[in-house]
Amino acid sequence: MAISTINFGILGCADIARKVSRAILLSQIATLTAIGSRSLEKANKFAAENNFPATAKVYGSYEEVVNDPNVDAVYVPLPTSLHVQWAVLAAEKKKHLLCEKPVGLNVEEVDVILKACESNGVQFMDGTMWMHHPRTAKMREFLNDEGQFGQLKSVNTCFTFAADPNFLENDIRVKPDLDALGALGDVGWYCIRGILWATDFELPKSVVALRNPVLNKAGVIISCGASLTWEDGKVGTFHCSFLSNLTMDLTAVGTKGTLHLHDFVIPYEEHKASFISAVESGFKELVTGWEPKPSEHTITADIPQEALMVREFSRLVGRIKNEGAKPEKKWPTLSRKTTLVLDAVKASIEKGFEPMEIVS
Amino acid sequence: MAISTINFGILGCADIARKVSRAILLSQIATLTAIGSRSLEKANKFAAENNFPATAKVYGSYEEVVNDPNVDAVYVPLPTSLHVQWAVLAAEKKKHLLCEKPVGLNVEEVDVILKACESNGVQFMDGTMWMHHPRTAKMREFLNDEGQFGQLKSVNTCFTFAADPNFLENDIRVKPDLDALGALGDVGWYCIRGILWATDFELPKSVVALRNPVLNKAGVIISCGASLTWEDGKVGTFHCSFLSNLTMDLTAVGTKGTLHLHDFVIPYEEHKASFISAVESGFKELVTGWEPKPSEHTITADIPQEALMVREFSRLVGRIKNEGAKPEKKWPTLSRKTTLVLDAVKASIEKGFEPMEIVS
Repeated sequence: MAISTINFGILGCADIARKVSRAILLSQIATLTAIGSRSLEKANKFAAENNFPATAKVYGSYEEVVNDPNVDAVYVPLPTSLHVQWAVLAAEKKKHLLCEKPVGLNVEEVDVILKACESNGVQFMDGTMWMHHPRTAKMREFLNDEGQFGQLKSVNTCFTFAADPNFLENDIRVKPDLDALGALGDVGWYCIRGILWATDFELPKSVVALRNPVLNKAGVIISCGASLTWEDGKVGTFHCSFLSNLTMDLTAVGTKGTLHLHDFVIPYEEHKASFISAVESGFKELVTGWEPKPSEHTITADIPQEALMVREFSRLVGRIKNEGAKPEKKWPTLSRKTTLVLDAVKASIEKGFEPMEIVS
Repeated sequence: MAISTINFGILGCADIARKVSRAILLSQIATLTAIGSRSLEKANKFAAENNFPATAKVYGSYEEVVNDPNVDAVYVPLPTSLHVQWAVLAAEKKKHLLCEKPVGLNVEEVDVILKACESNGVQFMDGTMWMHHPRTAKMREFLNDEGQFGQLKSVNTCFTFAADPNFLENDIRVKPDLDALGALGDVGWYCIRGILWATDFELPKSVVALRNPVLNKAGVIISCGASLTWEDGKVGTFHCSFLSNLTMDLTAVGTKGTLHLHDFVIPYEEHKASFISAVESGFKELVTGWEPKPSEHTITADIPQEALMVREFSRLVGRIKNEGAKPEKKWPTLSRKTTLVLDAVKASIEKGFEPMEIVS
């Protein structure tokens, strides 16, 4: 397969765009071709501080990025409420889309974006970086191993961080007109994705929100949780919050095995990551200890997970651009499923903690 | 304080009684004075196999144990449905009670037992061994440390094990006339105790069972879970099951700190145990890793947690016996609170997953 450099344009100067700009350069098969901000000054500063090549275009608008004929793909780290507008426009200009999560404010918005991508033949992928870590693939192998893990029975995820007072007052993630999904759309997105990942993306039958979400004065979710149930008896629970110490757990328990990790979204270290697995755990005589005990597995990554994300996205874009391939449907499907569950949690909260059936 | 050897009588030859017999000898302040079984042959075998002193009495009935004037304290590892009968009789005979969990089939039964203990001035303690591990005290210090842990916001516990087909068919824990509370009364007891422990035994306001418990043909719970909520916004969730690989998690998240452990009920090893704590966790520049990372703490125990349980129980019995002290109310209170939550989970399942208010 021919390796072709994919040219990225970036919409806006969000903090996360700094990390992804670095990842684009580290990916080795993509480069930074354009940056646009409503403020040309900010865009210039961003390009200078983030190692943009001298040839990169710096624009004082998002339009100019999506209109730039040299741009193959657009990275969209804008507030969620702006995703539909800019993602659809970019797709119509035949730009492939790497879009930050949450993808839209609800599944209807996500569908508008995904339909625009589909009808324009462009690749869509959301910015859930941990999906691309080699650890995730190793953990998938374990969960798929009937002899080691058996059938999944339960999965619990937790992603919280302690936002400072300024964040809780001013961040876009607490503003109803910007990232209106609050903690559910931010950290909760990962919790839901983690649960769906553990089930190999089988949607739950039913979702019930836990009974004490915290909403800010504007009605944006600051902390919440939910339980998810599947027809076959599997159960998932999660808790997400802006009000607790940074914590990032995923525990999946099968009939034969158990998977534990405490850094599933952002590994503790950039170039290696671990998980704990247990297989047919048992007790010693008189239940005085465990035999066998769980064991730790460490996986190294030459480049960070966000660069692997860019590499996978760019590989798919390259296949479309150079070989006439069709866009890979896996990634938009995962975004849509995650959003369906997210919508159900929000609806359950709004309807007084009623169980919400998931209809795909 | 005078050290006085406490004389234990044991009712029945349950498997767990082997572990507790060893613990009584290891405690150094108690000894094995009598064993009673409906089968004298079984009782003789049990005494011979479990290092009973030559002076110990071996009886062909439970009655003879509770009537033995040399017995100070009775250990009750009988099926839950027999607890009221034998615990009350033992209390009336002025025997102190170390009673296996679940203490009763519901809080009404527990109250009958606790009232019998109170009116007869005898000490009550349930057999929740991990409460007595020095690790538990260290973790308590961490959770109580306002500067390190802050306020508790969420706690998740999980205790499951993969029962074999014979267990699922024949164990007393799947029989409606014996341990009718099934997985909820067995592994779920520890999950609930773990959550209550994390909240410093503040009862939740409300309990809702998760929506897909598994019940056996006789209606006994084989797998279930629940979410617990407190007035101040704290949330707890747990999952317990006989159908998944042995897993034993406790995660408590506060405004400033996080506590993790994967062996909270039975430490991996007998003489040392670890937990992971994190304080004001954060990310490195560009969110490429954690700084600081959580840290592991290891605590050694000269004697196992079950021997420390016997030692604490015997210490309290000794104070009553030798110094005229009153029974310590802490332990019966914890048993009662755990049962109140357990009852609420069961009631929520029976009432179609309605939230149950906890009234102490």
